[in-house]
Amino acid sequence: MEDLFAALESIVGPENVLRGSDKDPFLIDWLGKYRGDARAVVRPADTAEVASIVEQCSSRSIPIVPQGGNTSLSGGATPDRSGEAIVLSLARLNKVRSVDPVGNTIAVDAGTILSNVQAAAAAAGRYFPMSLGAEGSCTIGGNLSANAGGVAVLRYGTMRELTLGLEVVLADGRVWDGMTALQKDNTGYSLRDLFIGSEGTLGIITGAVLKLFPSPAARATAFASVSGPKEALSLLSAVRSSCGDRLTAFEFMTSECVDLVRRHVADARMPFDAAQTAVVLIELSDIDSEPGLTSRLEDSLAAAIEAGLVLDAVVAQDRSQAKAFWRLREGISEALVREGGAAKHDVSLPVAAMADFVGAADVAVSCACPGVRPIVFGHLGDGNLHYNLLAPLGMSKEDFAARCAGLSRLVHDETTVRRGSISAEHGVGQLRAAELVRCKPSLDLELMQALKATLDPRRIFNPGKLLADC
Amino acid sequence: MEDLFAALESIVGPENVLRGSDKDPFLIDWLGKYRGDARAVVRPADTAEVASIVEQCSSRSIPIVPQGGNTSLSGGATPDRSGEAIVLSLARLNKVRSVDPVGNTIAVDAGTILSNVQAAAAAAGRYFPMSLGAEGSCTIGGNLSANAGGVAVLRYGTMRELTLGLEVVLADGRVWDGMTALQKDNTGYSLRDLFIGSEGTLGIITGAVLKLFPSPAARATAFASVSGPKEALSLLSAVRSSCGDRLTAFEFMTSECVDLVRRHVADARMPFDAAQTAVVLIELSDIDSEPGLTSRLEDSLAAAIEAGLVLDAVVAQDRSQAKAFWRLREGISEALVREGGAAKHDVSLPVAAMADFVGAADVAVSCACPGVRPIVFGHLGDGNLHYNLLAPLGMSKEDFAARCAGLSRLVHDETTVRRGSISAEHGVGQLRAAELVRCKPSLDLELMQALKATLDPRRIFNPGKLLADC
Repeated sequence: MEDLFAALESIVGPENVLRGSDKDPFLIDWLGKYRGDARAVVRPADTAEVASIVEQCSSRSIPIVPQGGNTSLSGGATPDRSGEAIVLSLARLNKVRSVDPVGNTIAVDAGTILSNVQAAAAAAGRYFPMSLGAEGSCTIGGNLSANAGGVAVLRYGTMRELTLGLEVVLADGRVWDGMTALQKDNTGYSLRDLFIGSEGTLGIITGAVLKLFPSPAARATAFASVSGPKEALSLLSAVRSSCGDRLTAFEFMTSECVDLVRRHVADARMPFDAAQTAVVLIELSDIDSEPGLTSRLEDSLAAAIEAGLVLDAVVAQDRSQAKAFWRLREGISEALVREGGAAKHDVSLPVAAMADFVGAADVAVSCACPGVRPIVFGHLGDGNLHYNLLAPLGMSKEDFAARCAGLSRLVHDETTVRRGSISAEHGVGQLRAAELVRCKPSLDLELMQALKATLDPRRIFNPGKLLADC
Repeated sequence: MEDLFAALESIVGPENVLRGSDKDPFLIDWLGKYRGDARAVVRPADTAEVASIVEQCSSRSIPIVPQGGNTSLSGGATPDRSGEAIVLSLARLNKVRSVDPVGNTIAVDAGTILSNVQAAAAAAGRYFPMSLGAEGSCTIGGNLSANAGGVAVLRYGTMRELTLGLEVVLADGRVWDGMTALQKDNTGYSLRDLFIGSEGTLGIITGAVLKLFPSPAARATAFASVSGPKEALSLLSAVRSSCGDRLTAFEFMTSECVDLVRRHVADARMPFDAAQTAVVLIELSDIDSEPGLTSRLEDSLAAAIEAGLVLDAVVAQDRSQAKAFWRLREGISEALVREGGAAKHDVSLPVAAMADFVGAADVAVSCACPGVRPIVFGHLGDGNLHYNLLAPLGMSKEDFAARCAGLSRLVHDETTVRRGSISAEHGVGQLRAAELVRCKPSLDLELMQALKATLDPRRIFNPGKLLADC
């Protein structure tokens, strides 16, 4: 292997081939759930260096694990324990290549941090709408690999819908240059869409052309309490009818979820006295001035109260109050950690089936593990729920851990039976690779394996993620 | 082959295997430019029958040409002259399977006519935004095959963005059931997006789940005259900034295009005295009441006149005036036919490069064919231009026809050099298959051929379309 290291060093320089303890941070995931090993961590500076590295590894059948900001929630960027692979860090591919405010596009390196893309768009008077908790660390390449969602999917779509062009290093080291900035292009099969969401298993994304939008100058934010997910769905329909495309976010939290945040997050305060009710966080945005948008949201919620859909509601009177509302939503992850950690699920369902799913899943997991505590929240407007489970009070961490796989199967079964998805926005990674085989129809898996064999015949890209080895 | 016919007849009934002159209408395209032959035209009633037909043909390596409404503008649904293929008409797969007004989705057979999908959505109080000239005849399967565009892409996207799930009969006759209604699903490679836009060359789409939207109750429509494409682009930026997502259509026509429609379409009248200027047709839509939207458009255009971007503008005062504006836009195809037929191009470009493209293409074609008359119109907001060429006055049809291929190459070269696409929304079909080989990078073609070999190894699906045989 010494000739491999020599080759890698000649490509990126010896200082960018990490082989000692300096590679440790790249071998463990952000949540500390997965720890692997690797021959080396290689840090190329540009696409040409990525291509050369892939060529060297490909000829030796050395597996490559691409890594961006290392913020995967499903172990998607962590090597396995074999130590066979190299980790290819895209962190130095971090340039904004160009911004086109006329065409409303931005071209970036795949290692660019999401918040830097947002900032570059803002500097050009435009808006890049992808936004999620890890935006200060995660990279565009990771967002593309997992087809990230976030809090504005309802209006702007997932990463797939926000992407026009891609640059990808293929398994033989050639560079596919699909960096086009076209709103329409029907000259053949959509290679772009094949790579998006493939979690680094078909090629290594090194660049992307993304869509920009006019900046939404006005925002209006509200909290509303509802009896449960069914009423939240009715409210969603009502708000969509009265506010149309202005509806940017519609986030749901069960009463148990609200209670948890209240207990653990000191600065998260409910804007009203809602005991034992679920809540939704609603955000509208528009290019107009704020007062008009705020009164539209007030009118919409007043009508919903009148119609019995909403128990109570508060519309934020300024940006700082809006921020406090979001703090409550964003405090959930923190509260879950403080409560001892949860079995997490990232399911999506046909919107109309969501209330029914929550009811059925609650019954299934409670029967299997009496006292288990579902903490449910998510992007209701996208049909996406984070259906998390906390241990019954008094059960040891180890006892609960031993039951988690079984509980996850129950949650995924209730999802699959409603034609839902067991992975909506966090990626399959290592975490759900076995469940994917169990839940996905065999014909889908067969087609996916055939595409994998076509594009990565030696299976060097990100082994053990997404597609279990066959 | 008699056993093939017997097998087909046992699947669909003898009355649905056409072998005499009754197959003629299926053998020639809508424009009368392509005429082919086929062993038979087979008219299945449902997905299971399609699957059985494919299985029978596949085992005998008989090519299959899928056909929906037979409205392709690029010969995409017409068999070649060999007479080897069967035409598989999807016209009897015409059921709306279900409408979900809560989830905002509709599930339809692939042979459902587009206007019937629009009507089914409207009957449920929802809106399906795909709209194009052939909507009374074209089918959803054809729209998906060509990834159709139409007049509302600016706001709602192409057919790809409007589609959640698909059902596809594969080359071995198995049915891939991807009829999910999920806004988010990251469980692996996007098989859906591989079939969309593949022009029937990878599988036969038999069903789709499509997105619905709130009905836009209000529309505001205006005509504005501008000096040329550059000014039209500046106006586009200005209107997008002042109207945001309300901007639904932004259609551009050069002065030559306006003149042509004036001369040939009796009921198309310019709303103002615009001689020798280009015009744009602008439409806003929203869920609100109409007066507010109309005054927003008036304000936006007044500011644009003030800024010198617009020479003159008229905002429609009612729906019938708006309809008259659209008649002018929609009369172009008719006017081109009456003028003797044009060499048509369906290119897309980065939006910022469009004005430059028009200037350069005008020079290139005029040098090659002095007196040639570019008639340019299109969806400027999508970067999509229909750059058409009429013969020089006095040149015979035959002489011009002999020059068309050369002129098309020039137009496509000016497109390709700006990283544009030679096929934006009409499909490659037979018309542009050779040009695709010339204009598309060889690595793209190689990857496409590899995917074709994976999914249709015997190359039975729609031979000679999109991908030239290799």
